[in-house]
Amino acid sequence: MGEKIIRVNMSTLSTSTSTVPDEWAGLGGRGLTSTIVAKEVPPTCEPLGKYNKLVFAPGLLTGTAAANSGRLSAGFKSPLTGGIKEANAGGTAAQNLVRLAIKAVIIEGIPKEDTWYSIHINKDGVTISEDTEFSGKGNYEVIRTLSERLGKKIGILSIGPAGEFRMAAANISVKDPDCNIRSHGRGGGGAVMGSKKIKYITIDDTGGPGLTIADPEKFKQQARIFAKALLDHPVSGQGLPTYGTNVLINILNEAGGLPTKNFRYGTVDHPEKICGETMHDVIVARGGNPSHGCHAGCIIKCSQMYLNEKGEYVTSGFEYETIWGFGCACNISDLDDIALCDNAMDDVGIDSIEGAVLMSVAMEAGILPWGDGKESYRLINEEIRKATPLGRILGNGAGFVGRAYGLTRIPVVKNQGIPAYDPRAVKGIGITYATSTMGADHTAGYTIATNILKVGGFVDPLQKEGQVELSRNLQIATAAVDSTGLCIFVAFPALDIPACFEAIYEMINARYGLNLTADDVVALGKQILKTEHEFNLAAGFTNKDDRLPEFFEEPIPPHNAVWDMTGEEIDEFWNF
Amino acid sequence: MGEKIIRVNMSTLSTSTSTVPDEWAGLGGRGLTSTIVAKEVPPTCEPLGKYNKLVFAPGLLTGTAAANSGRLSAGFKSPLTGGIKEANAGGTAAQNLVRLAIKAVIIEGIPKEDTWYSIHINKDGVTISEDTEFSGKGNYEVIRTLSERLGKKIGILSIGPAGEFRMAAANISVKDPDCNIRSHGRGGGGAVMGSKKIKYITIDDTGGPGLTIADPEKFKQQARIFAKALLDHPVSGQGLPTYGTNVLINILNEAGGLPTKNFRYGTVDHPEKICGETMHDVIVARGGNPSHGCHAGCIIKCSQMYLNEKGEYVTSGFEYETIWGFGCACNISDLDDIALCDNAMDDVGIDSIEGAVLMSVAMEAGILPWGDGKESYRLINEEIRKATPLGRILGNGAGFVGRAYGLTRIPVVKNQGIPAYDPRAVKGIGITYATSTMGADHTAGYTIATNILKVGGFVDPLQKEGQVELSRNLQIATAAVDSTGLCIFVAFPALDIPACFEAIYEMINARYGLNLTADDVVALGKQILKTEHEFNLAAGFTNKDDRLPEFFEEPIPPHNAVWDMTGEEIDEFWNF
Repeated sequence: MGEKIIRVNMSTLSTSTSTVPDEWAGLGGRGLTSTIVAKEVPPTCEPLGKYNKLVFAPGLLTGTAAANSGRLSAGFKSPLTGGIKEANAGGTAAQNLVRLAIKAVIIEGIPKEDTWYSIHINKDGVTISEDTEFSGKGNYEVIRTLSERLGKKIGILSIGPAGEFRMAAANISVKDPDCNIRSHGRGGGGAVMGSKKIKYITIDDTGGPGLTIADPEKFKQQARIFAKALLDHPVSGQGLPTYGTNVLINILNEAGGLPTKNFRYGTVDHPEKICGETMHDVIVARGGNPSHGCHAGCIIKCSQMYLNEKGEYVTSGFEYETIWGFGCACNISDLDDIALCDNAMDDVGIDSIEGAVLMSVAMEAGILPWGDGKESYRLINEEIRKATPLGRILGNGAGFVGRAYGLTRIPVVKNQGIPAYDPRAVKGIGITYATSTMGADHTAGYTIATNILKVGGFVDPLQKEGQVELSRNLQIATAAVDSTGLCIFVAFPALDIPACFEAIYEMINARYGLNLTADDVVALGKQILKTEHEFNLAAGFTNKDDRLPEFFEEPIPPHNAVWDMTGEEIDEFWNF
Repeated sequence: MGEKIIRVNMSTLSTSTSTVPDEWAGLGGRGLTSTIVAKEVPPTCEPLGKYNKLVFAPGLLTGTAAANSGRLSAGFKSPLTGGIKEANAGGTAAQNLVRLAIKAVIIEGIPKEDTWYSIHINKDGVTISEDTEFSGKGNYEVIRTLSERLGKKIGILSIGPAGEFRMAAANISVKDPDCNIRSHGRGGGGAVMGSKKIKYITIDDTGGPGLTIADPEKFKQQARIFAKALLDHPVSGQGLPTYGTNVLINILNEAGGLPTKNFRYGTVDHPEKICGETMHDVIVARGGNPSHGCHAGCIIKCSQMYLNEKGEYVTSGFEYETIWGFGCACNISDLDDIALCDNAMDDVGIDSIEGAVLMSVAMEAGILPWGDGKESYRLINEEIRKATPLGRILGNGAGFVGRAYGLTRIPVVKNQGIPAYDPRAVKGIGITYATSTMGADHTAGYTIATNILKVGGFVDPLQKEGQVELSRNLQIATAAVDSTGLCIFVAFPALDIPACFEAIYEMINARYGLNLTADDVVALGKQILKTEHEFNLAAGFTNKDDRLPEFFEEPIPPHNAVWDMTGEEIDEFWNF
């Protein structure tokens, strides 16, 4: 297939290109990044040291005409969790890499000189340039300036000041089709990129070899089935396109699983001010775009462009988890304030989930009052951006803030902030938080689908029964989906519509001339989880890391549910 | 024997007294605190939460006429390391507890009200008082004011602002015989006491039952042998009394094992400005006391009273490790500046080893220039004292500073700062740092004795051979000694003079009417280490935590030694 692996060695400032080893040929996205990290990164190494590597890999279907296939995976040992990490994002970089026939970019080493570099990938190869032009600049300036200079089709990966300062909540930004920002959000990839002194990477696919499809007819047919399923399913075809992921505020509030004031309550007092329905109306009233794709070929279009009262762009990719974090965990009722925080997090370059959770912990610590959106914005935009001592505390994540202030109410697992679904009121997601190799991560096994949205059946969120199996099945499936380059939201139709699930592996078969079955997909998912789990065990994790914080023994209103899954019950997760 | 266990429940603000359970009867000091913590504290609990306990226990010989027997152990789950912790200190509290026939004080729970309390122990029992008089005050003011009020013989345990702010480097101070300060230094006991909202504890032994000796004649005879050995041995009888522990600066500098500029070099440029010989002369010239005991009955008297140029008291218990930390790791050449830092750390209430190591990491981070003693003092005395954001970063220890600033050169094991002996140039102490249940702790198995001082034989510090066995034997012996209430420095004569070692267990036999043998002492030490190790394993530690930081692969001049003990070699430690 002519695909290649690119290596960039920042210690020697040299690059190399090689063919794809046989054992990596069938892998893409998370499957490939996790396999490479597990093979090449010493599990106990310093995450910000010379032995860590930063790996980018498009998914197996990325670059094809398959709907929603434009995701890029970033893999590394996480400075936030200390374990293996994969964070995937939309944007333009993944498809450009595929059109250059690049299966993975592996960045190694640490430069000797204390300066900044940029990396440029095009049809002729890879170059490393000393480049201090954008040092200290925010991601918006980097991406917009470079887009103007290099054209709108360029792929760009960049870090903001938070990444330059090697903060554990720092993310890696990706230029989206409109020169706005998507993010490899979780786990501190921006700090790893910063430790390697890389401010940005450009990917220019002009003149690249493009990609070949082994069986174009079959591919087209399956892609059509797949796209139809996405449009037919009520979640991916109606809910997400209309209201974005923020459709969930009212749903979780009604379920009593919307963690409010740092997980004290399961409902919020002001859902109508921040919910997806309101957001949609505000966007439309101000002339923004309520439904926008994060990469070419997206037909769900759960993103949007949120404008301020003057009609000026504020943010896109304004997600439920971010709005939950500031709107509920922090109890901020002004959606415009939350949008400004989202803008600032993207620009400074911190994960917007970690940013939201750390802000609620900062309120817990008394650093700012509950509900203060203006001060939240200032803390992100000034303190974190400038890496003041307070900014250093905040920028290293929710766990770090909690420990800095001697708190015990710190919502993290494996030191990663717990997102927008209370594990007591939705116990399946608690199993995912506890067991995911990634730390607390709802996307790793999104049981909300079945616990709340009744997609793929129904498992009562308040009962213990069936949650471990539910989370396990979803985590296995998700690991496989994360390897395809498909957006995780294809899981909604895939869970309910058998032809949709089949179409996923049949598209892979058509793309590569393979004969994968549904069993192979499950086997791949299991293999990825086990590879990641073994890395974490070798890094020093034990089942004691697969636990929720102590404070979840407190009942959460309105259901007054407690976290009552025992260690033994949780540990059953890995019994596969 | 009429001994009792006191329990103080801060959740209910109630106290209780009980007899000593049979299984605790033969235990004291570290053996007792570690046994109680292992039995009663859930290993995975939040160290600053309601399930942690703070246990104080005098040693088996404390309160007797045995020389150097006045040590008190404090045990808890450490907020710094996340593992079990025992920190022992001299001062007046231990002997007062024994004279009240109190074998241990176990403090449980967390108060509901956000206020401060003091605890008062006397012959009539224990009382808890709401007491905000000293909130925010330094340890010197607490201890001196209370001593004036209650008399010089009172025992006092207190925390400074760092403990009130629950900082992980916070220590617990103990009043010494002259109303100055000794410390349960390492591991954040002050934060645990602060989490329980206890500012201070007084122990008044007036009218207490005192203690009985089963065989007074035998005790007297063995105590005489023991005291003579302490005086006869060159280290405990000459080096320590004359120059204090700071006698070690020149010795370690000559050995090339004196870690300088955050472990970059094995020698310092200005040993003559900070060494024990110079310190002795300065103290004498200024009219201070160069040899002073930290508790009644001490005949080694390695402490001192260091005065400033005006002849005013600055600090006592001015230890080698503190002077190394500021003088070498931070490269500060002015002994008066270092003494001021020591005073400030005692007053603010942070461990002076962690304080020194964190300051060198702060210099690594560029927070202050290398060698800047004035700014070091200001950071402790203002930033940490007031818990500014920078003070919060610093007050949580060396590992926290390093992570806040995204560093990789962070000298910690199990998140506790590595003290004053380079593990590459003195490999035995590297094994102790790596394997100790306490985190990096030289006192846990002080191989400097045999690697450098040639006490108890000689094992070449630069070779790998014999280091694991040396560290293991010393850690076992130390765990036993830490249970007796004897100062760890009795190990020097005990290693070289057989009658001294015998006298230790024969004094215990005479005190309690027992028939312990040397084998029993070894068995006790092994049992304590295993109890602590099992707690740590249950808390989530693995052998990956028994490793030194990555940067010790760099050679250290002058020997250009590297840390080359493999994981397998280190893991042999626990094979007993």
